Formats: sequence, C-alpha cells, structure tokens
Amino acid sequence: MEKLIDRLYKRVAGAGHVCLGLDTDISYLPESMAQGDEGDTVFCFNREIIDATLDIAAVYKVQIAYYEALGLKGLNAYMKTLSYLREKGAVVIADVKRGDIAKTAEMYAKAHFTGDFEADFITVNPFMGMDTLEPFFPYLETGQKGLFALVATSNPGACDIEGITAADGESVSDKTGAMIRQKGMKFTGNCGYSSVGAVVGCTNKAQTKRIRERLAGTFFLIPGYGAQGGKAEDMAGYLDESGNGGVVNSSRGILLAYRKPELSGLGFAEAARAEAIRMRDEILSKL
Amino acid sequence: MEKLIDRLYKRVAGAGHVCLGLDTDISYLPESMAQGDEGDTVFCFNREIIDATLDIAAVYKVQIAYYEALGLKGLNAYMKTLSYLREKGAVVIADVKRGDIAKTAEMYAKAHFTGDFEADFITVNPFMGMDTLEPFFPYLETGQKGLFALVATSNPGACDIEGITAADGESVSDKTGAMIRQKGMKFTGNCGYSSVGAVVGCTNKAQTKRIRERLAGTFFLIPGYGAQGGKAEDMAGYLDESGNGGVVNSSRGILLAYRKPELSGLGFAEAARAEAIRMRDEILSKL
Repeated sequence: MEKLIDRLYKRVAGAGHVCLGLDTDISYLPESMAQGDEGDTVFCFNREIIDATLDIAAVYKVQIAYYEALGLKGLNAYMKTLSYLREKGAVVIADVKRGDIAKTAEMYAKAHFTGDFEADFITVNPFMGMDTLEPFFPYLETGQKGLFALVATSNPGACDIEGITAADGESVSDKTGAMIRQKGMKFTGNCGYSSVGAVVGCTNKAQTKRIRERLAGTFFLIPGYGAQGGKAEDMAGYLDESGNGGVVNSSRGILLAYRKPELSGLGFAEAARAEAIRMRDEILSKL
Repeated sequence: MEKLIDRLYKRVAGAGHVCLGLDTDISYLPESMAQGDEGDTVFCFNREIIDATLDIAAVYKVQIAYYEALGLKGLNAYMKTLSYLREKGAVVIADVKRGDIAKTAEMYAKAHFTGDFEADFITVNPFMGMDTLEPFFPYLETGQKGLFALVATSNPGACDIEGITAADGESVSDKTGAMIRQKGMKFTGNCGYSSVGAVVGCTNKAQTKRIRERLAGTFFLIPGYGAQGGKAEDMAGYLDESGNGGVVNSSRGILLAYRKPELSGLGFAEAARAEAIRMRDEILSKL
C-alpha cells in the first residue's frame, strides 16, 4: 500500500500546494445557513466546501479549536468532517497541536489516529521534548499516519521562545527543527520526505532558504499565507527544486471568499473553489 | 466575590497540597465496573472518587487526553466530570495544554472557559509565544479563571527544548518562567499569587530553590510526585515560607490505590481517599 507521505507528495505534484483550512467559525456561515444545531450547520458548510474543492486542495487541515468551542455539538461536527474527508479519499491534517508525555501522549495518539477523531496527519507541539513524539511512532510505522511538529511559527510572538538564541548561535527553532528531522528520518517515504513534517511559517523571509536547506527531507506545513503577510513569491524558497516538499495553508481566505466583492455573484462553495484555484495558480506561477 | 486564586490559596492552607488527577483510563477501573458505555462508566468511577475526596483534595486536575481517546463518549464523560466537580464547589484544572495563536487561541479560551467544557484553570503550552496567552486574559479579568503555563516539566525529554541554554546563560525554562511571571502580574490576588501559574515538575532537585525565588508570586502546579520520582521532602523547596504557593499532582497513585496490597480490603474510592490522606500528610509533615 502506498505510504501516506508519498500520497501527499503526489497530490502536491498533481494538484498544487493548497492546504485548505477548515477553521469554520459559526460567524463565517452565510446568514441563510445559521440556524438549527450549530454543529450540524457547521458540518453542512464544510461538506459543501469539500465537495467544491476536492480536485483543487492537496490536503485539508481541520483546526479542532473551532469545534471544541462549540462543545460536544462542535466535536460531533469535527468527527463528521474528518470522516467525510477520509471517505472522499482526501488527505486530512488534524490541527490539534497536542503535546504531552508518556501515557498521556499515548492517549492523544489513540484519540487522533483511531476512533471518532481519526485523521491522517496531526500537528504536535514539541515543547516538552522529543519523548512527547515517541508514543505516536507506532502509528507512523504503518506508513499510514504522520505528524507535523511546530518548528517556526508565523505569529509575532514566535520570537519569545522559538526565537531564543542558544549559546552556540542556533535558535530554539533551529534546534527543534534538527531534532524533529533526526527523529523523522526512519519514517522516510519513497518520495524522500519523512512522515514527520514541520510547521514552518512563511512570514520570516530572511530564514527561508536556510530552513529549507537545514531541513532537507522534512515536509513543510506552511501557515501565514495571505492575511498574515506571506506571499506566493516567497513560497519557492520553502520548496525543493521540483517545487514539492510543502503545502501552504489558507483558511479564512478561502472560507470567506464569498464575501469578496469580485466573487459576490457566487455561492460560498463556488467562491471557495474560485479562491482555491486562484491561490493554487498564483503559487505555481511563482515557482 | 472572592477571586479564584485566593480560593485556591485558602484551599491549600486548609486542606493541604493534593491535586487529584482524574487521568481516568478505562483500564484503571475495577473489573466489576467495566461494562456498558465506556464514557458513562468512567464518569461513575470519577464521581465516586470525587465524593470520597472532596475534603482532602485542594484541587482536581482532569487530563483531557484520556477522554479524547474515547471519542465523543469520552468527551461526554469529561463534560460530566467537570460539571460535577464545579457543582460540588471544587476547584478544577483542565489539563489541556492548548497553545495556539490569535483567533484559534480565542476559540480554545471559549472552549475551556465557557460552555460544555468549562473549567476554572486550564493548562497552556506557551511554545508559540506570549501572544498565545493574550486571548485567555479577558476571562482572567473576571477573577474567576486562571492558567497554568508549562515552564519546567518533569519528563526526561524536558532537556531537549526547555533545557536549551541561551547565550546569556539562562535556560529556555528560565526565560519562559520570567515571561509568564511578567504577563501574570496584573492578575495577582489578595494572597499575593497570580492567576497565571506555572507547571514546574519536581524531578529536578538542583533547580528547586532557584525556580521558587525567580518565580515569586507565581503559583505552581507540580507534577512528578511518586511514580516519576518526586518525593515529599522535596516539596518544601517549591513552596513559600508559609508552605503555600503550590499544589502537587498525583493521578495513578490515587486512582489505582485500591490495587496496593496494603489497601486491598478497601473499595476503589475508599482506597483513593486513604492514599490522598497519606500523600497530604506526608507532604505536610516534611514542611
């Protein structure tokens, strides 16, 4: 069976770099939809977005915080969204940023790699150390699961801890990236990338080339495009010579495309498709 | 209305330092209980433990990973456990270790400070920077909510990132602690402690005195007691001169006390009570 990371690599080669973020806040829904059970409504919105973008998105990223905020109803919508995506054959990243130790980490692995909330990739926060990743590895050994670990994020506060410079001149992000890469090597697919990827924001242009070189073989999940200031012309720096090795996330830019004046004639799902195509082509045109 | 941090401080002064961790794995339940809906069974177990320890535990900590691992049923048990604890007037820490930015962090704050999963304190992971904490602060301004941020954890891998030494000789933990303390100052209660506490493991004895001095006014949530090697005689170092300023977590040691040969005549709830009393008294006797 084809490995997950090879499947993602092929998706990028065939469909481009769009990681469609389903950070679905109830306030994003068209007024006509916002009634009845909030969880059901959010799932209906997601399903229409998914149906309209399956051939455009390389991968979907579902941000669990938006669903947790609606309580059990929200998590029901989260479960249905993941299940629908996997049923359709899409690759799914659960953006949960979990990070804990020993048996607790085992529980998080069970929670997000099996059962109601099963996803393909999950994001993890490595702050507590590399032992927080180990309990996920038995799942990675199947070739059908993967991680994206936080390495260099796109928010202003990233300088506080990730940006601390160690005595040897390397930053905490540098060191974290190197440890993640080392840990992930044994999960390398045929495409040359590991199932242990890294979250690398695209707002720090000065670091682009350096981080790609240091993290050869590490697939990137790249937030920060659009609203946070990341531009299509910067993306090539995060990718390899063949233009692969990363996906670029956009959430609100796509989910709320229907509110843009230039797309005002379209329904929310058609507008999302149009924006996903625009983003895909913009990135491809700058490679 | 009394502030949450002052309420916790008084609980510790009156009841001692036990933070009872409800990390309830289904395998911990007596065989006689393990049937029917797993979520319902876990909640019944928790309820009996809570009823038996309300006057002993200073605070309860519910580790969400164990509930997420059971999917929606587990999160139903999580909701019921939090709700039952708050109904009984207990102070509740939701150990969720969330950490994200901007609107996503707002969603986590909404998820864990309101609605189905409302808790008093929540644990947060500050790796992405201090801006990840800001969205929680509007809730802290009410005086009725609080945070415990990861600063120095008790696992072996803590050296990987938390233990990195910066160019100025301070560790990432040192710097994180200082930032957390600074951020939390404006939420200081009458007891002199802030509603922004720190998770400080008790397995690094060399650091004990230094960390307490540097983080004056920061309340500690202290994991690592028992199974991980932390001893009652080390706790005084993490507390202030009056023996307050921290709570010490025990989860499995209490939940599984009924399996200890010396408590074999007791039911699981009675055994949990006996172990919680033993732990409380052991810590108090070494102050």
